[in-house]
Order: sequence, then C-alpha cells, then structure tokens
Amino acid sequence: MRTPGHPEVTPSRRGDLFDSLCPTRLLLDRVGSRWTTMAVLSLAAAGGELRFSELKRQMSGVSQKMLAQTLKALERDGLVTRRVEATKPPRVYYGLTDLGGTLVLPLQALREWAEQYIPRIQDNGCAFDAAQHS
Amino acid sequence: MRTPGHPEVTPSRRGDLFDSLCPTRLLLDRVGSRWTTMAVLSLAAAGGELRFSELKRQMSGVSQKMLAQTLKALERDGLVTRRVEATKPPRVYYGLTDLGGTLVLPLQALREWAEQYIPRIQDNGCAFDAAQHS
Repeated sequence: MRTPGHPEVTPSRRGDLFDSLCPTRLLLDRVGSRWTTMAVLSLAAAGGELRFSELKRQMSGVSQKMLAQTLKALERDGLVTRRVEATKPPRVYYGLTDLGGTLVLPLQALREWAEQYIPRIQDNGCAFDAAQHS
Repeated sequence: MRTPGHPEVTPSRRGDLFDSLCPTRLLLDRVGSRWTTMAVLSLAAAGGELRFSELKRQMSGVSQKMLAQTLKALERDGLVTRRVEATKPPRVYYGLTDLGGTLVLPLQALREWAEQYIPRIQDNGCAFDAAQHS
C-alpha cells in the first residue's frame, strides 16, 4: 500500500517493506525502537492497565516527554488505549488493544535476541575498533 | 551487563533491556530500524553474498551514505562480513555472519507483523486525527 496521496497499487491491502512509498518502513522504525518495545512489553507483563507513573518507573531512563510521545504514537496507531479517570487529580490508565497484543510476540523475540547476544556484539565492536586503529 | 566504564553487575553475561545503563537498548534501536531490517533480510534472501550496488538496488530509497553507514554498523557488530575483491575497480561483497543469521527470524517476524497490520494502523491514525480535530 502507499502513503496518502499515492495511488493504491497492490491488489491486497498489505504493506511492502521494500516499497519506498509504503508506510511499512515508518511503522517499523516506530515499533522496533527501545521505548515502544519497553512500553508494549511492560503493558503485556502487567496483564492489564498501567498508570503513566507506573510505566515511567518501569521504563527506567525514559523522560516524561519521551514517554508521553511514545504513548501518544501507540494510541494513534491503535495499539494502546488511554483511559482517564475523573478523579482530582485525574488518573490516566494505559492498556494494550487486541491489535497491540499482536505485537507482543515479535517484540519479545527481538528483545530476547538483543539480551542474549549483546555481550558478543559488544565484544565484536571492541575488536572492530581495535583493528581499525592498529 | 553495563556500558564500558560501568561495572558489570549481573552475574551472567546477558543484557537487560530495562536497565538504563545496559547497551541492549542501543542495540534494539539499531536492529529494529528499517535499513538494518532490509539489509539483513536482503542478505538472507540472497542466501550468500551481495555487492554494495545489489543491496542498494534492493533496498529502494536508501541513499549511498545511509547504506554505507548501515553496513558499517552491522560489520562492527559482527552481523555482516565485508570482503573486498582486488579487481579494478575493487568489488565489495557483503554477507551474513552466523551471528547475523540468528537475527533473521526475529526480523522476519517483525516485518511480517508490520506488513500485515499497516493497513489497519493507517486507518487508526486517520480516525485518531479526525477525532482530535472534531
């Protein structure tokens, strides 16, 4: 499929990462990033809703602004729900949609891969830099 | 594990995405991005080496500079090999290492997810924007 303004050329409504006009690649940049991965996996592990402050605590190192941006993008994509409870002050709860739930397994696999191989990859980087400077 | 300069605190040599000092999250940003995904999946589909120009053709829309940066990062991480044939002009071949091969399945799953759901996600974004402006 193509971005708005471009004709739909594929017969099926399906993306193509290797099509430079297809928004699949923009989506990939969003969902594969650290903060999206952490937000989705935190919500999946919670098995229900989490408040903004709870997400912020779990996603160590995330700034207020970055977390708000990440959650807004996820909400816009329909991957996360946002529910405001009219208390004083209001409480905001986030949860995964069914669509967001389909992202959990792919992101878990990517996280598992990264955590497993980061030691070897760090070693490779050091060896590469040493070879460049020798 | 921790970035250089920080003590290794985990007993096993394994990353932790939720540790703000662990380089796992930097790795995740690299490998989940569009260009890394396309480069790794192109090399996997080729089943062997590809020349720089062949990769550039397959990864439509990538600039010379971005492709060179992507491949250098993959080489530094030990995920891709770079082989120069001393012809005139020299020919440069890229291929996946065994370690790079372990990344194929996770990235294929992420690509599959993105291509399958991008139509719904595009629709969600349009509906979200319309609701914001109503």
